[in-house]
Amino acid sequence: MKLDTTKKILIVGLGLIGGSYARALTDKGYYVTAITGRQSTIDYALSASMIAKGAANPDPALIAEADLIVFALYPGVFLDWIRDYQQHFKPGAVITDVTGVKGCIVEPIQSMLRSDVEFIASHPMAGREVSGVENSDPAIFRGANYVVTPSEKNTQDAIELCCDLGRVLGFARISTLSPEEHDEIIGFVSQLTHCIAVCLMTCEHHERLQDYTGDSFRDLTRIARLNDEMWSELFLRNKDALLHQMSLFEEELARLRERLEKGDREGLREMMRASTARRALFDKKTD
Amino acid sequence: MKLDTTKKILIVGLGLIGGSYARALTDKGYYVTAITGRQSTIDYALSASMIAKGAANPDPALIAEADLIVFALYPGVFLDWIRDYQQHFKPGAVITDVTGVKGCIVEPIQSMLRSDVEFIASHPMAGREVSGVENSDPAIFRGANYVVTPSEKNTQDAIELCCDLGRVLGFARISTLSPEEHDEIIGFVSQLTHCIAVCLMTCEHHERLQDYTGDSFRDLTRIARLNDEMWSELFLRNKDALLHQMSLFEEELARLRERLEKGDREGLREMMRASTARRALFDKKTD
Repeated sequence: MKLDTTKKILIVGLGLIGGSYARALTDKGYYVTAITGRQSTIDYALSASMIAKGAANPDPALIAEADLIVFALYPGVFLDWIRDYQQHFKPGAVITDVTGVKGCIVEPIQSMLRSDVEFIASHPMAGREVSGVENSDPAIFRGANYVVTPSEKNTQDAIELCCDLGRVLGFARISTLSPEEHDEIIGFVSQLTHCIAVCLMTCEHHERLQDYTGDSFRDLTRIARLNDEMWSELFLRNKDALLHQMSLFEEELARLRERLEKGDREGLREMMRASTARRALFDKKTD
Repeated sequence: MKLDTTKKILIVGLGLIGGSYARALTDKGYYVTAITGRQSTIDYALSASMIAKGAANPDPALIAEADLIVFALYPGVFLDWIRDYQQHFKPGAVITDVTGVKGCIVEPIQSMLRSDVEFIASHPMAGREVSGVENSDPAIFRGANYVVTPSEKNTQDAIELCCDLGRVLGFARISTLSPEEHDEIIGFVSQLTHCIAVCLMTCEHHERLQDYTGDSFRDLTRIARLNDEMWSELFLRNKDALLHQMSLFEEELARLRERLEKGDREGLREMMRASTARRALFDKKTD
């Protein structure tokens, strides 16, 4: 399947990410429909011309006409949805997702899925500290990374389709990882960072701390404002990888602490220089 | 002393912060001079009309004409400077600084200083991940916090002068703390955050990690690019407070880890909700 504008794309779950997909794809001339939990969300999306049609329930006709379906749901809800409604998929349809964990998603869904439909998983690495369709904005994809996580069950055709989708959405870098590699890396770059931000917010209780903060503290804790329902599920579904990353980080903090305790200035400077050199690789590439 | 534009202000140390002070004060109509280590920096500042006069050595005449002197030097260099050149100060002059640690600065300087000159310490909580006079920009003060740290030796007059300086520079919030309170808070909001950013950069060595990062990781590690000479000195001069803050943070991370290990989803959500609620207090107030 080629991702040309004759293809009908259904978004299931119209929140911040699903909504941003809908806006981006409609803007590019695709026929986009949506299924989501609330009628008010569908009404909003229709009035904002983000979608051509929508339903607040798993409407069989809407599902059956879609060539490509993007699931932007919490992991558990996504698994249940496939189990309950996959009978409505069009033969030959391709489905993808935006889920932030992969090991617990790719294998179970590929195992239960009809053999005439292919699931190719992907993770758009973009977000905001606010949620909901009203905050959706394709600009969050600009300069960001998009990771496709195929298993050995995926066809080259579907992998390429999914990479094309990332390009159409405007991501700066498209890459592929196995679901296991993905979860290890995400445990580090996304989940560990959210753990740190939360702990920075809850470990110190000096009153009026906000009068004495600089930009560094604000930057490190921007993501401390988070959706507890979603993130607790993501943490628990990637528990082993996250615990491993927490251990690596804790060991490194202990190494810095030891150098500080000993007054080992050169040792501290060496860590700081390594940090400075490596950080230069991470600047955002904008289009 | 009132901070009107008849006052002559000398900046000692024309880097990112000293340069931003010079630009801001010259823009507001003050007569600003500078002493710094390199002639090329003075030449740059003169050509950019940031200062009226300058010298690449501790020129006695330049020191003697200043009513207010701002020291923007590393702590150790600042201490040596006062010891070596304080004989040139104008009687009745007020001196202040921009140093990021206070306990190790306020007491020694007030003890050795001539009795006809007053040192009132302050900390402009602003910065960038680049250094040098070429990167100086008073815009970094906008929306930021400015903390004056008087001791019992300071006069109300000098405290007010120093607060006025913060207002003239364009800071959003001016407050006072004792040097000890300052160091405890700074150990948390600034130094601990830099430790965390460094450790995030040095604890994981997955190659091409930069292809898989999102904004959260970039935000948490923006400050991982740091001046190792300055920060190692600041860490070591505030060692006890920083070690204490590291311990509080490590304990909190252990608390989160325990909830994750146990699969205690409600416990995780509770920490996330507390974090989300508290973070709302920290948004930057822009003018």
